[in-house]
Amino acid sequence: MPPRTFNFAVGRTNPETFPVERMQRAASAAIAREFEELTDYPGKLGHPGLRAVMARRESEREGVAVDPDRIALTNGSMQAVTLTAEALTRPGDTVICEEFTYVGTIGAYRSLGIDMQGLPVDGDGMRVDLLEAKLAELGEARRPKFIYALTTYQNPTGATMPVERRRRLIDVAERHGIPIVEDNCYGDVHFDGEKPPALFALSDYAGIVYLCSLSKILAPGMRLGYLYAQPPLFESILARRHDAGANTFAAATVAELYRDDVWELTEELNGHLKVKKNLVVEGLGNELSDVCAWSNPAGGLFVWVRYPTDVDADRLARSAAERGVFFAPGSNFHIDGAPVPYLRLAFGHVPDADIREGIPILARCIREARTSNAAREFEGLFDEVGQDT
Amino acid sequence: MPPRTFNFAVGRTNPETFPVERMQRAASAAIAREFEELTDYPGKLGHPGLRAVMARRESEREGVAVDPDRIALTNGSMQAVTLTAEALTRPGDTVICEEFTYVGTIGAYRSLGIDMQGLPVDGDGMRVDLLEAKLAELGEARRPKFIYALTTYQNPTGATMPVERRRRLIDVAERHGIPIVEDNCYGDVHFDGEKPPALFALSDYAGIVYLCSLSKILAPGMRLGYLYAQPPLFESILARRHDAGANTFAAATVAELYRDDVWELTEELNGHLKVKKNLVVEGLGNELSDVCAWSNPAGGLFVWVRYPTDVDADRLARSAAERGVFFAPGSNFHIDGAPVPYLRLAFGHVPDADIREGIPILARCIREARTSNAAREFEGLFDEVGQDT
Repeated sequence: MPPRTFNFAVGRTNPETFPVERMQRAASAAIAREFEELTDYPGKLGHPGLRAVMARRESEREGVAVDPDRIALTNGSMQAVTLTAEALTRPGDTVICEEFTYVGTIGAYRSLGIDMQGLPVDGDGMRVDLLEAKLAELGEARRPKFIYALTTYQNPTGATMPVERRRRLIDVAERHGIPIVEDNCYGDVHFDGEKPPALFALSDYAGIVYLCSLSKILAPGMRLGYLYAQPPLFESILARRHDAGANTFAAATVAELYRDDVWELTEELNGHLKVKKNLVVEGLGNELSDVCAWSNPAGGLFVWVRYPTDVDADRLARSAAERGVFFAPGSNFHIDGAPVPYLRLAFGHVPDADIREGIPILARCIREARTSNAAREFEGLFDEVGQDT
Repeated sequence: MPPRTFNFAVGRTNPETFPVERMQRAASAAIAREFEELTDYPGKLGHPGLRAVMARRESEREGVAVDPDRIALTNGSMQAVTLTAEALTRPGDTVICEEFTYVGTIGAYRSLGIDMQGLPVDGDGMRVDLLEAKLAELGEARRPKFIYALTTYQNPTGATMPVERRRRLIDVAERHGIPIVEDNCYGDVHFDGEKPPALFALSDYAGIVYLCSLSKILAPGMRLGYLYAQPPLFESILARRHDAGANTFAAATVAELYRDDVWELTEELNGHLKVKKNLVVEGLGNELSDVCAWSNPAGGLFVWVRYPTDVDADRLARSAAERGVFFAPGSNFHIDGAPVPYLRLAFGHVPDADIREGIPILARCIREARTSNAAREFEGLFDEVGQDT
């Protein structure tokens, strides 16, 4: 192990800004007030206080009413991802998702024997324009049980789906009677500009299952996420739940933390994350403009980097690791694990100084892992190779 | 709803003795010290500190070494129950369990499409003497994927399996190569006498999966349980896990709470529970000796009551509810939901005064729900009707 490490591999939140004192006060208040609830089982929905706060979070962000009794707290949004798939599929069933998507989702779906059918991703997220052709190709026999989409600050690409594409996604899904699982776990890690509405805010389609999380705006170790859906889908997903409910201790503490407002703390933390994101993007701009392309996401915890096809990915990973630089290879996020010329940089937990120092080291490793001096064969992050743009 | 309620229905811990200040101090210390861990994902095993404390708990109780890296923390032991079944069975597979068992397990197994094959329970737990005949009856086609047993303070009967029966269970299972899932979630709610060793302390058989919990000695709202198993079973169960790990916040807090010792607080709480158990048993003795039989468990949170077969169960439940008395009907705990002349009284969370007042009301309801004046047709809690004892 090198003496100093620069860990861009794992999507974490920022320990520097973890609100230690506020959490201590919140935990103390929750324990004193809610020991009755702590000595009982949470049930399928979970702590009413946190459900109310999360309903307010969704309602304030989206501008529509959200019923806290249609929210079920989960052990992180990852349990919601898994539970939804367990409820809606059997081994061998087909699901449509982005061709590049969250590695946890890929692992869960694979383990459940799900046939993942990917749609390409561009700067506007899932290529919904290709959805009907994909459905036609799959036919009735492989009709997807649902469509899984990371609509905002997509992991790993950082792409956000514009409102018109969202409407089209809902329209196609509703016409075909296929549920949509919208994973918005990164949605409130927001740096710039306007956020398009969540799918549930655009439509009354009862096939929308919405997933969200506290892992990205607060801390993954709190293991709090939730799903929000309408009957009868909500009930059929919860019927598959057998863990006696989500953590009351964590839920009561976080409900207390956000009692007055969920946004103040979130924006404070996002301010620090935006600095980190900018350091990554500036570092890449200083070092790699001639050979790479990368995202400059308006939110989320990741920068997605494309490097030339003549980079030897194994050599890159090895030499970076030798110099203490860690990142997630793009193939991890490909539904078939295809060897793709991308890597993902997670910056949420990396000290600013480490970003400043680490990116130039990574840049050197990329250059040294090239097997030619050929010019870069692409312009944009999502261009097909050789494509005119 | 009647003005006053006596809720013997749900298995909870005691809010009167919840260690509020100790938990507040533990949470504060854990937050201050472990915010780095809180901003990361716990992984499949979970918080190393709590795993070390739970390894010590098991090792001190059982007198054998326990490797913390063979312990995986779960969202209550209920997630461990579910995860183990998901990993070891497919829909239609057979599992052997006690004919009366935990309602959460029954619900999970039913939802997973498991064919539950019950063995009768007596005062010494599962009738292991009938196991080989059951295996022969099932044959190779329905060979069970595992045997699930609540070995100590069985829910709902309160029975504890003596050491000789434990050895026989292991012997039969090992000879047939069938895993045993030992659920010891009540084991440390201990009032009197010696506890027999856990199965893993009696044998090196690598097919033993051991489940335990913090829900019974501390609080179910902490949602902390664990499984302990040997390779390759341990790894194959964890391969089915897709929730990104158990709650670090709760785990770090409880590790701090029990840092010096897990037993002092447990024994303190057990002292109060024993008073409650004795109040239930004495109340039943004062009121129902001529018509009922009941357990007097050496531990756990339940008293199991048998009433005469001429009691109209619906009328009993209705009239008890009208007078504010709630209990769990015996049929809830029967693997086939059979209408059985039993009910279960949970006492852990019921104030002493409510036990004193509630049991006589329940007794009146039982007497009024009888449809004859016939003599009681049984002696003991587990006698077959008409059986000579």
